[in-house]
Amino acid sequence: MDIAALRSANPDHWKKATAIRALTLDAVAAANSGHSGMPMGMADVATVLYEKHLKFDPTNPNWPDRDRFILSAGHGSMLLYSLLHLTGYADMTLDEIRNFRQWGAKTAGHPEYGHATGIETTTGPLGQGISNAVGFAMAEEMLRARFGAKLMDHYTYVIAGDGCLMEGVSQEAIGLAGRHQLSRLIVLWDNNNITIDGTVDLADRTDQVARFRASGWHVLEIDGHDPAAIDAALTEAKTTAEPTMIACKTHIALGHAAQDTSKGHGALTNPDQLAAAKEAYGWPYGPFEIPSDVKSAWEAIGHRGATTYAAWAKRLADTSPARQAEIARIFNRDMPVKLGARIRALKKQISAEAPKVATRQSSEMVLEVVNPILQETVGGSADLSGSNNTRSGDMSVFDVDNRKGRYIHWGIREHGMAAAMNGMALHGGIRPYGGTFMCFTDYARPAMRLAALMKIPTVFVMTHDSIGLGEDGPTHQPVEHLAISRATPNTWVFRPCDTVETAEAWELALTSKETPSVLSLTRQGLPTLRREHKAKNLTAQGAYVLADATGKRQAILMATGSEVEIAMKARDLLEAEGIGTRVVSMPCWELFEEQDDSYRRRVLPAGPVRVAIEAAIRFGWDRWLYGERGRREKGGFVGMHDFGASAPAPTLYKEFGITAEAVADKVKSLL
Amino acid sequence: MDIAALRSANPDHWKKATAIRALTLDAVAAANSGHSGMPMGMADVATVLYEKHLKFDPTNPNWPDRDRFILSAGHGSMLLYSLLHLTGYADMTLDEIRNFRQWGAKTAGHPEYGHATGIETTTGPLGQGISNAVGFAMAEEMLRARFGAKLMDHYTYVIAGDGCLMEGVSQEAIGLAGRHQLSRLIVLWDNNNITIDGTVDLADRTDQVARFRASGWHVLEIDGHDPAAIDAALTEAKTTAEPTMIACKTHIALGHAAQDTSKGHGALTNPDQLAAAKEAYGWPYGPFEIPSDVKSAWEAIGHRGATTYAAWAKRLADTSPARQAEIARIFNRDMPVKLGARIRALKKQISAEAPKVATRQSSEMVLEVVNPILQETVGGSADLSGSNNTRSGDMSVFDVDNRKGRYIHWGIREHGMAAAMNGMALHGGIRPYGGTFMCFTDYARPAMRLAALMKIPTVFVMTHDSIGLGEDGPTHQPVEHLAISRATPNTWVFRPCDTVETAEAWELALTSKETPSVLSLTRQGLPTLRREHKAKNLTAQGAYVLADATGKRQAILMATGSEVEIAMKARDLLEAEGIGTRVVSMPCWELFEEQDDSYRRRVLPAGPVRVAIEAAIRFGWDRWLYGERGRREKGGFVGMHDFGASAPAPTLYKEFGITAEAVADKVKSLL
Repeated sequence: MDIAALRSANPDHWKKATAIRALTLDAVAAANSGHSGMPMGMADVATVLYEKHLKFDPTNPNWPDRDRFILSAGHGSMLLYSLLHLTGYADMTLDEIRNFRQWGAKTAGHPEYGHATGIETTTGPLGQGISNAVGFAMAEEMLRARFGAKLMDHYTYVIAGDGCLMEGVSQEAIGLAGRHQLSRLIVLWDNNNITIDGTVDLADRTDQVARFRASGWHVLEIDGHDPAAIDAALTEAKTTAEPTMIACKTHIALGHAAQDTSKGHGALTNPDQLAAAKEAYGWPYGPFEIPSDVKSAWEAIGHRGATTYAAWAKRLADTSPARQAEIARIFNRDMPVKLGARIRALKKQISAEAPKVATRQSSEMVLEVVNPILQETVGGSADLSGSNNTRSGDMSVFDVDNRKGRYIHWGIREHGMAAAMNGMALHGGIRPYGGTFMCFTDYARPAMRLAALMKIPTVFVMTHDSIGLGEDGPTHQPVEHLAISRATPNTWVFRPCDTVETAEAWELALTSKETPSVLSLTRQGLPTLRREHKAKNLTAQGAYVLADATGKRQAILMATGSEVEIAMKARDLLEAEGIGTRVVSMPCWELFEEQDDSYRRRVLPAGPVRVAIEAAIRFGWDRWLYGERGRREKGGFVGMHDFGASAPAPTLYKEFGITAEAVADKVKSLL
Repeated sequence: MDIAALRSANPDHWKKATAIRALTLDAVAAANSGHSGMPMGMADVATVLYEKHLKFDPTNPNWPDRDRFILSAGHGSMLLYSLLHLTGYADMTLDEIRNFRQWGAKTAGHPEYGHATGIETTTGPLGQGISNAVGFAMAEEMLRARFGAKLMDHYTYVIAGDGCLMEGVSQEAIGLAGRHQLSRLIVLWDNNNITIDGTVDLADRTDQVARFRASGWHVLEIDGHDPAAIDAALTEAKTTAEPTMIACKTHIALGHAAQDTSKGHGALTNPDQLAAAKEAYGWPYGPFEIPSDVKSAWEAIGHRGATTYAAWAKRLADTSPARQAEIARIFNRDMPVKLGARIRALKKQISAEAPKVATRQSSEMVLEVVNPILQETVGGSADLSGSNNTRSGDMSVFDVDNRKGRYIHWGIREHGMAAAMNGMALHGGIRPYGGTFMCFTDYARPAMRLAALMKIPTVFVMTHDSIGLGEDGPTHQPVEHLAISRATPNTWVFRPCDTVETAEAWELALTSKETPSVLSLTRQGLPTLRREHKAKNLTAQGAYVLADATGKRQAILMATGSEVEIAMKARDLLEAEGIGTRVVSMPCWELFEEQDDSYRRRVLPAGPVRVAIEAAIRFGWDRWLYGERGRREKGGFVGMHDFGASAPAPTLYKEFGITAEAVADKVKSLL
């Protein structure tokens, strides 16, 4: 690459882009780790994007109508940090850049949502950013349809690398974006032909241009170091009816000895090579030094957004107070006050009517009540709409000609659905939930983990949550998936035992601001066990006494979901034999763990034998089977010990020994 | 669809294909559940495939050189069961078909590997079969290169549906197959335009033909109900230099009232409609009744393979005894006797030299010893070769012009890698292992679960297994992933503390015949803790006493992997204060669980306080922190309580309080 030619062709542009390259080199050298090559290769593209196209205002970083910039190739985090610092985001100080990858810094190895303003999503696990972006772009379409283009009218830009495009989830994202003609989604592919192991063709020879076109994208191919070409491509991309992919031919680690090599992907820390690169750039400044003219030029770019923001703020102020309040509410993730009353009314009705329904149907009953009063909820399913019961009667289907549709047919794409839902939640103004079979938590895992890490309240509706699924067999029967979700930090796993608990779980999931929820719901019908109406949300305590021993308390049965019914029947058997038995319903371990010691001890007092019942493996239950600090409780477990099998559900419960009789026998064997 | 025209155009073909349709309708009706439409739609394609192309012998179902038929659209299991029954697989009796989806039957809702011969892999979770198939086809290429075309010369056929192609993992598979020009891989796409939620275009409008071509596939488009067209396409597919995708335009639930609708995807049980469909088919037979002429015609197809098999067996018998023994050995998943000796020699050398290395490097040291004596191992990495240390010096890279290569650059495709490794293991003659960062267990999860369910010994090499990864931060730091793998039935999770344990873990992983292994390995260097050589494989016991208390035993420290070093240092601190402290290394919980009670009690006797140390969340540890059956031990945990952070590893250990001092303090607080 002829660096000199690049320098002389566009000296003003060159200096701005080189500020990114120099900060990257300096920060990586200081940390002695990181990824230098990508920011150095994509600096030109990013500079043109921020200078000429991106709508942003560093002084109002959370402006709802800003364009979103998503660094899907998150390892190139210094690209984003440099841009945020240079354009004037107050919290991205030079000290933060100096402390790249150090304890307590906002400049983590990969961009972490919530660490600094301007980071729209956490990226690093490849393919996530581009898939989040589909959700961002859908959210924009929905909110524009709802509030009008005067208030909502922006683009979602993505920088994605070869790794993002090789991950399977990218195909799910590409297919969705093409299907829904998300014309405001613009992906800039860092086409540098390098991965960690070598050149891309070691592992892939896919014609990416043809691949994107096959899914209905507009595709442009440019020299990623030519500012005019970048500008022209972005200009064109904003006018098309389809999502656009701009293939940017770039040189990884441009201008460095490691240019165009895998070595260039990683940390370039050799001082001589670093000096030589800066020399080639014509950048005679010290580490972390940005000359004032370059900093001024970048800050001028940052300042421009203020005018646009002010005009938007005025348009917002010109709307009705109700509309302003509604926008503030949904972007603040607040629930309307009436939500609680509606949930309580439903609970009261259910306790009185006591229907026997599957909790997936219970969930639908709740959605029928809450969706009409929450215009920000967006439901969907990964091609299991009739099974997941995620569509309420008021929801029309989101489509190219119905952007107000609040129900999404995600297709057979659990991972893409989860990642796009995260994108919607991150965009703001939308409360996404989506369904699949609980077993396919596996497919959605990478995105579910990121929801927890990012602290966003995405709701995963996981139905058919045990062997109760029946004949579809062990490939479709979760046994370890409750443990998997419970093991994940900052995740609420709700396994309600009836419609009342399902309503309480939904109330908690919807009022959550920083914790995603997994709703584990049955295929099979369950009786209403909460027959006495209580206004209080008992699920909020995580576990509670559903039925106490009538005489001396000799046993405590702990259960969740469909097995609470079995626990209640076992209690009947035991009480008939004079064995006083308490049943504790434990719909949410995480919330129970958060209660104070005294409440936990009241629910699970020392002394009685304890038996847990769950149609899943035991893993994790020992936390509750033995008393804290080695007290003397004996614990037993009735549940699964291996994968399931294909047969009708009642047969499976019987054959696997998950019955009231087995529970009673277990208790007696421990007494 | 004009059924009458189809019937009259090819009456002999029609009858054979209709036998599949009729069995499907009858079995689903009897079970009152299942998926009728796909077998009814693809019966013609499958009939021509089995009649004219598939090399198989029902009397030698495990013949190494058979063609493999993979039903990626596993919900259409009755297609496969019908074919197996009709062509004469002895274990697929009519009674099994009658018991479709019932307890104990071989005819599970989705095809389960191991339930019946002729089921090559477990499918159902969509996209898995087509991704397994890539591994099957790679295995064939490798073994053909190794043993010659006289012994290894077959094709891999896949039937995949829209769901398979929408799942992201299919893109990883398609990219791999195209890259490696797997010309003997032939995918038959059931292009019926129907998913559960409706027509495919509800969720996807991808031009699949263009998509496959973009990744270097040969693509043909045919009428999936025209036997001549199917035959011609399969004939052509076998001659190309690329993998071939045959887009078969079909009608789901052909000839039934539900034809071409989503309803047709599911269980078609209405008796009148069933009768009407059979009437249209010209099939006047009772439930499960196959007229003798049709059964004979099918059995004749089944018999044909016997001649081909005999010729192959003769060619095999003509080779050297050594070659025959080697082929028998590798297809029987036996290890050579010398493996044990080589592992013991390495252990002895390591105990003497006591190197300080990361366990990922330890793993490489083991591979350098074992790979030269195991020509069936195939290594690889999802674009982290230098980090996962999965390539030994004797391994060349698998490529189009080097089919003997035993190292695979999988690309940034953890899921596709895991699924393809499963395919290799299922094919037989190959022992696959592959690496990525432990955190990306998430991406590979669906295939890892299936390895466990199928009982195949795939080895997942998961490096950078904790916050010890350092600066890359929480997106790359596993905290819940040990729990996730431990929660999965039939999975050995090894977390070795040094090179000796790593060698022992590899020995167990390689000698396993029915259990997949996860090797959880560090990025950071660890001392050799097993300084005294023991020939016995201590890791096989799951946990053992690494260092005992010198005086009265007051505390037991339990740890795995990198935290065993911390436990040993804590022991020093405690012993110095006169607190007798035992250290138990627990490299594999699952194997410890399998030991008898008395061994477990010897290792973890009642009485002393117990503290577990692991740089991961506590979830699952309570199983070991309290005595069985409520004995009085007190338990404490030193580890992670949330996601990690970005900083150098030593800083993280210190900041998160995972230190010898913290462990000693915890013990003292419990005493």
